[in-house]
Amino acid sequence: MNQQTPLILVTNDDGVHAPGLHSLIRTLQPIGQVIAVAPDGPRSGQASAITVETPLRINRCTAYSHAEIYSVNGTPVDCVKLAMHTVLPRRPDILVSGINHGSNSGNCVIYSGTMGAVIEACMLGIPAIGYSLLHHSIAADFSHTGKWIDTITRKVLEQGLPNQVCLNVNIPAECQPKGIKVCEAAPGHWSEEYQEYTDPMGRKFYMLTGHYNNDDPENPAYDNYWLDRQYISVVPVRPDQTYTSAIPQITDLLS
Amino acid sequence: MNQQTPLILVTNDDGVHAPGLHSLIRTLQPIGQVIAVAPDGPRSGQASAITVETPLRINRCTAYSHAEIYSVNGTPVDCVKLAMHTVLPRRPDILVSGINHGSNSGNCVIYSGTMGAVIEACMLGIPAIGYSLLHHSIAADFSHTGKWIDTITRKVLEQGLPNQVCLNVNIPAECQPKGIKVCEAAPGHWSEEYQEYTDPMGRKFYMLTGHYNNDDPENPAYDNYWLDRQYISVVPVRPDQTYTSAIPQITDLLS
Repeated sequence: MNQQTPLILVTNDDGVHAPGLHSLIRTLQPIGQVIAVAPDGPRSGQASAITVETPLRINRCTAYSHAEIYSVNGTPVDCVKLAMHTVLPRRPDILVSGINHGSNSGNCVIYSGTMGAVIEACMLGIPAIGYSLLHHSIAADFSHTGKWIDTITRKVLEQGLPNQVCLNVNIPAECQPKGIKVCEAAPGHWSEEYQEYTDPMGRKFYMLTGHYNNDDPENPAYDNYWLDRQYISVVPVRPDQTYTSAIPQITDLLS
Repeated sequence: MNQQTPLILVTNDDGVHAPGLHSLIRTLQPIGQVIAVAPDGPRSGQASAITVETPLRINRCTAYSHAEIYSVNGTPVDCVKLAMHTVLPRRPDILVSGINHGSNSGNCVIYSGTMGAVIEACMLGIPAIGYSLLHHSIAADFSHTGKWIDTITRKVLEQGLPNQVCLNVNIPAECQPKGIKVCEAAPGHWSEEYQEYTDPMGRKFYMLTGHYNNDDPENPAYDNYWLDRQYISVVPVRPDQTYTSAIPQITDLLS
């Protein structure tokens, strides 16, 4: 860590007004200079999506006096890219995303806008962490998260992260966590994913819903195992999705 | 492969009217029963994004007589999920996405809606391939792609793919490819990512642009190396982004 005050870029996918964002900002302010650049409204499930055809605008949220906060009419990844390009006075020392209102454990990470922002920063070589609380409510209680977020964030700021590795941190909702476990994302799948409706014109439409099924719930290698037992899970995530060890098999298949 | 006619689910991220989609449908129709479920307009850069707050609607595109084609007012992943839930008569034997108008080589895969659909199908255990042509134009010439797409798709249908592996196939734009190379996604980064404008009210806005920089252009391990030399690149992609080998190092860091 360099000697100047750390510059901390904060974003999320629940939008600039989400309580989880402001809880995170307040936790990080004793650690460094916080600048938040977040979507102007909810962007859950936006993954690594980028806005390619719509003009993006940045606005300072002057209604918030406790921190320097900007809103962007785009995705979490847009926020990171625009923050780097336009808002920040220099390259940040860390990107912190969250606190997400809801779990990003198991394979939910693939859809997560919280983690999309983290992966973007990681690809830019910036240490990056996503924090999620296992509670979807807008009124979720974040009071127990500060101590753990402070500890993890300071350690990453002090020691950095390995090249092309970022962290997906999930925090149990309703009690004091027993500790931290570094683990893998649990395999799982969604079922019954849509609810069907009929609109006033008699046409069908569909809303996403569904149940998440943990495919290996008793395996202590996985994040959901530890979250079920009131531990904080930390999954190292890599942006590169190449399955290098499958190359020989695919080469055989196509030859 | 089972003995009945293969059921082929087709989607893309350029939307239901993109010539690349119809070129792909025509290439695949001799192989099996094709049903296409694609976004109702361009969704480039949508990655694995899902629509969580907006009603989704499915419409049969009756203007197209050459195939059974549906449009969805959502993302490529929404198309796969809704196709599975609502449109298809049974589980498909393969998901084929594309042909994308433009490259999804290197780390562009992280933003790709074409590949978002492929990764979604892979997580559902369905063999899945994304095809992209290295030409952005709506008027791109796809005539040389059919032979290669036919070959690769038939081999995957016949032999399947390893568990939790899908394929990202990029095809050179302007000549007959010299062959197929199975390889890794090249490391790279984007620079100068936004163009700044001033609207009629004097307010600034930003549009995504930029240059892609290949960070290791002379390394034959990578897809861009082979694409530059007029080969088709095939990158095995895994949905799970856990960096398992980093777990001991992160455990040390946080202890």
